[in-house]
Amino acid sequence: MEKVPEKIRVKRVPKRGIYDKETIYKILDKEFICHVGFVYHDSPVVIPTLYGRKNNDLYLHGSMASRMMKSLKEGIDISISVTRVNGLVLARSAFHHSANYESVVLFGKAYLVEGDEAKNEALKYISDHIIEGRWEEIRQPNAKELKATMVLKIPIEQASAKVRTGGPVDDKPDYELNIWAGVVPFNRVIEAPIPDEKLSGGILVPDSIKNYEELYK
Amino acid sequence: MEKVPEKIRVKRVPKRGIYDKETIYKILDKEFICHVGFVYHDSPVVIPTLYGRKNNDLYLHGSMASRMMKSLKEGIDISISVTRVNGLVLARSAFHHSANYESVVLFGKAYLVEGDEAKNEALKYISDHIIEGRWEEIRQPNAKELKATMVLKIPIEQASAKVRTGGPVDDKPDYELNIWAGVVPFNRVIEAPIPDEKLSGGILVPDSIKNYEELYK
Repeated sequence: MEKVPEKIRVKRVPKRGIYDKETIYKILDKEFICHVGFVYHDSPVVIPTLYGRKNNDLYLHGSMASRMMKSLKEGIDISISVTRVNGLVLARSAFHHSANYESVVLFGKAYLVEGDEAKNEALKYISDHIIEGRWEEIRQPNAKELKATMVLKIPIEQASAKVRTGGPVDDKPDYELNIWAGVVPFNRVIEAPIPDEKLSGGILVPDSIKNYEELYK
Repeated sequence: MEKVPEKIRVKRVPKRGIYDKETIYKILDKEFICHVGFVYHDSPVVIPTLYGRKNNDLYLHGSMASRMMKSLKEGIDISISVTRVNGLVLARSAFHHSANYESVVLFGKAYLVEGDEAKNEALKYISDHIIEGRWEEIRQPNAKELKATMVLKIPIEQASAKVRTGGPVDDKPDYELNIWAGVVPFNRVIEAPIPDEKLSGGILVPDSIKNYEELYK
């Protein structure tokens, strides 16, 4: 096995650490909100934002006036974390309580995506990542909107995933206790789409949403 | 209205910024995973972890050997973000696509909780925050487990919340387009508890889980 760089090596419960790109991409593709960490005026700042993944790059977008975007585009160090929680792990002892989760922590630097065509393509990556097929259904960005939007590409330099699954693991003597133990699983569901109150009559729910609903079935 | 300190003032879409503690606590109390940002060897690091809130303090716990915990206990600057996503906001134009969400970004420093009694109490705060009533049902930490566990208290020095609700807002001419617009709402549900395969027969699902299920109904 290759030596894992210190920066991304999972220190706590190392057996939960995963470094292959396929697993990392799979987790990144399940979510669309990431938490971006950067240093601003010598202090750490963590901000949630939407993202898209395409190949080994994450894409972020935001207003040209965004403090975060303006900071990131200077090529400073960035850490990004994506987390999905799948359940509470309830053990017999307080000490062995845990959560089932899948998370990715990655490090990189941002590059400004420049030029209308490249920006538009990157925005499509984000849109496809969040809800595939939507991009083709909507009015795409005009020159003014592209100008107001900053798009950043973050090649994933270093990344690790951490995954916990399964039931609780208690200390041997605790199995004798008269205490319920197991997992309370979480799931994310989508509810019926709520049409905009200004929606003109006769416009049906589009394929992008129908396909999205299928993913959640 | 009081002047909001620069560090926590919501810059993008300032009307979405909320600074009253009740709203901030309410959002913090809906979730139990936060993303902690700190600076390690001059680089930002973002790590997901469980938390509990009690009064104006967040509590984190982890192994005495955890790199994050060891860094935080030195009293360095910390930023913590908690985010819940409630839906995708699908507009007629790409530009006005958004998400409905509630998030908190806060800043503070950590203090080591010391002494078995204080540690135990703080661990109960975390447990109560995640699933109320569970603490009373389980085998509580012994001296060895307390010794292996680091508990940190983070007084919330500065915090802001950002909330988006409701449907899409499109540019006036786009309302004429033959494009579906609205919201796809998300919900988190819990599924039937999965008993540990080593659970002795006759141990029923406890009140803490029954009450937890009620919260999700």
